[in-house]
Amino acid sequence: MSLEPLFILEMVGTAVFAISGALAASRANMDLFGFSVLALMPAIGGGTLRDIVLGRTPVFWIENTSYVAVALLAALGVYFFADRPGFRRTLLVWMDAVGLALFAVLGTEIALNTGVSMLIAVMMGVITAVLGGMIRDIICNEIPLVLTGEIYATAAFVASIAYIAAIELGANTTLSLVIGVVAGFAVRGAGIVFHLSLPRVGYREDD
Amino acid sequence: MSLEPLFILEMVGTAVFAISGALAASRANMDLFGFSVLALMPAIGGGTLRDIVLGRTPVFWIENTSYVAVALLAALGVYFFADRPGFRRTLLVWMDAVGLALFAVLGTEIALNTGVSMLIAVMMGVITAVLGGMIRDIICNEIPLVLTGEIYATAAFVASIAYIAAIELGANTTLSLVIGVVAGFAVRGAGIVFHLSLPRVGYREDD
Amino acid sequence: MSLEPLFILEMVGTAVFAISGALAASRANMDLFGFSVLALMPAIGGGTLRDIVLGRTPVFWIENTSYVAVALLAALGVYFFADRPGFRRTLLVWMDAVGLALFAVLGTEIALNTGVSMLIAVMMGVITAVLGGMIRDIICNEIPLVLTGEIYATAAFVASIAYIAAIELGANTTLSLVIGVVAGFAVRGAGIVFHLSLPRVGYREDD
Repeated sequence: MSLEPLFILEMVGTAVFAISGALAASRANMDLFGFSVLALMPAIGGGTLRDIVLGRTPVFWIENTSYVAVALLAALGVYFFADRPGFRRTLLVWMDAVGLALFAVLGTEIALNTGVSMLIAVMMGVITAVLGGMIRDIICNEIPLVLTGEIYATAAFVASIAYIAAIELGANTTLSLVIGVVAGFAVRGAGIVFHLSLPRVGYREDD
Repeated sequence: MSLEPLFILEMVGTAVFAISGALAASRANMDLFGFSVLALMPAIGGGTLRDIVLGRTPVFWIENTSYVAVALLAALGVYFFADRPGFRRTLLVWMDAVGLALFAVLGTEIALNTGVSMLIAVMMGVITAVLGGMIRDIICNEIPLVLTGEIYATAAFVASIAYIAAIELGANTTLSLVIGVVAGFAVRGAGIVFHLSLPRVGYREDD
Repeated sequence: MSLEPLFILEMVGTAVFAISGALAASRANMDLFGFSVLALMPAIGGGTLRDIVLGRTPVFWIENTSYVAVALLAALGVYFFADRPGFRRTLLVWMDAVGLALFAVLGTEIALNTGVSMLIAVMMGVITAVLGGMIRDIICNEIPLVLTGEIYATAAFVASIAYIAAIELGANTTLSLVIGVVAGFAVRGAGIVFHLSLPRVGYREDD
């Protein structure tokens, strides 16, 4: 398989996460700089940390300007045209779900290609998918989606595991990517619709 | 041109940003450790991220101890002698403006020297200038200067663009540096004096 | 000296810091993902930044999975068995003190081995010891232990200096490690018991 389908998926994920960031900036009434920062953060933040700890520097968006360009264009688009605020929160949550599944699988694929163990590859998938969005939410002073109690990081985890399982069972890369993304999106979607959450330690007290 | 004038400018910018951080620590009534952290953060924080994503490691302050030493001396100086609190906030804002213009131009220059595209070079200039100060403000629980609504990141952007434009038009490095710094400082200064801000999306509601 | 005693010390420090993070997650009533993040943060966060700025990538936990595995096991252990909440805060503070002294000395040792100056080696020791715990506390919305006013970063500083002094005075690595850890733990322990703090600038006003 050539790298092209992977690259197209990456651009889609980048645009989707950038839009989710720009919508958050719109909700927070920010200026164009704020839109740019909040679009870039989820679009390239997680992958940047992944590349840095793996020693893949210059990081992925330095030599190929497409990532930054796509994210900034998405920010501009939302800045000038997103004046129908009605369902912005809902839209953000679902676009975020698509980006989450895509980036988890892509991050896992990239880590595996550097020859790391499966444990680390899964960790890199989750970081790629979750980190940037966490920072986006913290900057906006919203409670991070990842900590809202609904299944979130678990969906990235499932996407990553499903991708590795498919590869191990002999599926080709394209099929494995599809399986991983669908699995992750299904889990996150179920979390959104049914408000599923992981069990917590069953008490709370101020000790 | 030898690298010396660049190095002197870097030391000036380092001291100025370190003092801005130490003044913030003073306002927050911190101890000597807090002064050191808050002086180091704007002085070397942005350049550290720039070097890491560009793959320039060990980062710039590891092999040349001058940066850390200058920042710590500035912190000590403010700690022991800055007992005239009256105009500390005003002083911080203007010293920050000088550091902002200097670091934006220097960060752009360093990035261009590694052969990246202009888009990425401008981004590196803005990161070098803005990131450390944002973290300084977040640690202090003050609203980051960069988000106060006054022109701020825009000034770093203008400094970076002006530097690149001067280089492209055939000016030598020294002249281009001066042009970039003056342009950035003028924009930030105008922002401070006239309370200029970028336009925002023109509504705010809780959707 | 073989590297084994160092490695065992690192595993102990990793487990201790991971438990301190998991206990914080328990106090904050988090789910299993929260436990994992909060265990990993102090266990590998500081050393990750140390490795990145020193250019030691892939960072230490990529190729040797033990660090991540030990931290996640510690998180699981606390998640399933830490149902006696009574003294969790006290326990966290003292386990944190052990990890603090261990990581300060180990971070200094690792930095010195890359050939940096003593100033930078001390800085790396303090970062290794302090950074991850600060992030842990910020995520939990607790006031970082490092900023509570009690001697904290100073203990990491003392551990690092004591280690370097012992090495310079001719002690072998093992003895120097012990001296550094004991010195750092003694300072932090005294800070906890006697509520010692560094002097601050002696005024506070809103200027």
